[in-house]
Amino acid sequence: MPKAPAPAVLGLDPGSRCTGYAVVEPGAGGRIRLRRAGAITAPGGAPVPERLGYIFAELARVIAELEPAEMAVEGVFTAKNARTALVLGQARGVAILAGVQAGLSVHEYPPATVKKSLVGNGRATKEQVRAMALRLVGSRQNEMPLDASDALALALTHLQSRRLADTLERLR
Amino acid sequence: MPKAPAPAVLGLDPGSRCTGYAVVEPGAGGRIRLRRAGAITAPGGAPVPERLGYIFAELARVIAELEPAEMAVEGVFTAKNARTALVLGQARGVAILAGVQAGLSVHEYPPATVKKSLVGNGRATKEQVRAMALRLVGSRQNEMPLDASDALALALTHLQSRRLADTLERLR
Repeated sequence: MPKAPAPAVLGLDPGSRCTGYAVVEPGAGGRIRLRRAGAITAPGGAPVPERLGYIFAELARVIAELEPAEMAVEGVFTAKNARTALVLGQARGVAILAGVQAGLSVHEYPPATVKKSLVGNGRATKEQVRAMALRLVGSRQNEMPLDASDALALALTHLQSRRLADTLERLR
Repeated sequence: MPKAPAPAVLGLDPGSRCTGYAVVEPGAGGRIRLRRAGAITAPGGAPVPERLGYIFAELARVIAELEPAEMAVEGVFTAKNARTALVLGQARGVAILAGVQAGLSVHEYPPATVKKSLVGNGRATKEQVRAMALRLVGSRQNEMPLDASDALALALTHLQSRRLADTLERLR
């Protein structure tokens, strides 16, 4: 019986100014296919409610189009200050909600886990993580906005974590 | 020609654990009618995505039922620390989104403005604000959860601000 295709994963890196996203799906022979990566930037100078509505609508559109079944988002971290954390939290809340409303399961990974999972070093730079993330999806690009590559790294970390869980399940 | 009824206002006090809300509408003779006030508390111990989905769904339900046209939410403030601010920001983002998605206009008022507007003193206690808010809507209650009374105070501040703007408009 042919196996059902493993579901696509949406990686999300919400930021106070820009929300990075990437959708990947497992392909044949252990390969991973990058469906799309990008960054959602609300119109400059728009008031907060409009910005939040924009992020939600854009993410809902990506989800409806590419149909990921799972979401990976950056986990616990420390923000520079309370003001930044509040603004970031608003974007993060709305981004997570876009996934919840579409029925995606939501998984969190701390930044150090993502770095360790991809580069083998919890203190790797964003540029090192980007280089490895692009290599893992067989991309010939060597440039991608860091917001998008961070989102891609989150999606890849989730895929690795899921594969490990599946393997352990089969060994039981 | 009879005047169209002034639209109802939803006051919102998003918190990391509990989101207070209140819907008021202007009545005859300058009176203000309290339609409903309450606090939305997501199921204890539920994961973040589920909590955010719960807040959004509950607020969407209140908005659909009571049909406010405007929303007043607490403005800039300082949180204890970045972690608290992030959690609060998530709830605030989702609460504001519920308004935006339903077409409400969103207005922000800093805590000191709310206190000054209701009690005449920017450093009034939450209990003083609650007592005055309840008196303004002619409530015989003298107890109401502070999350709900803070939301009520925001809605009343917005009504006062709107009345002032209308008066200034007529004097032009």
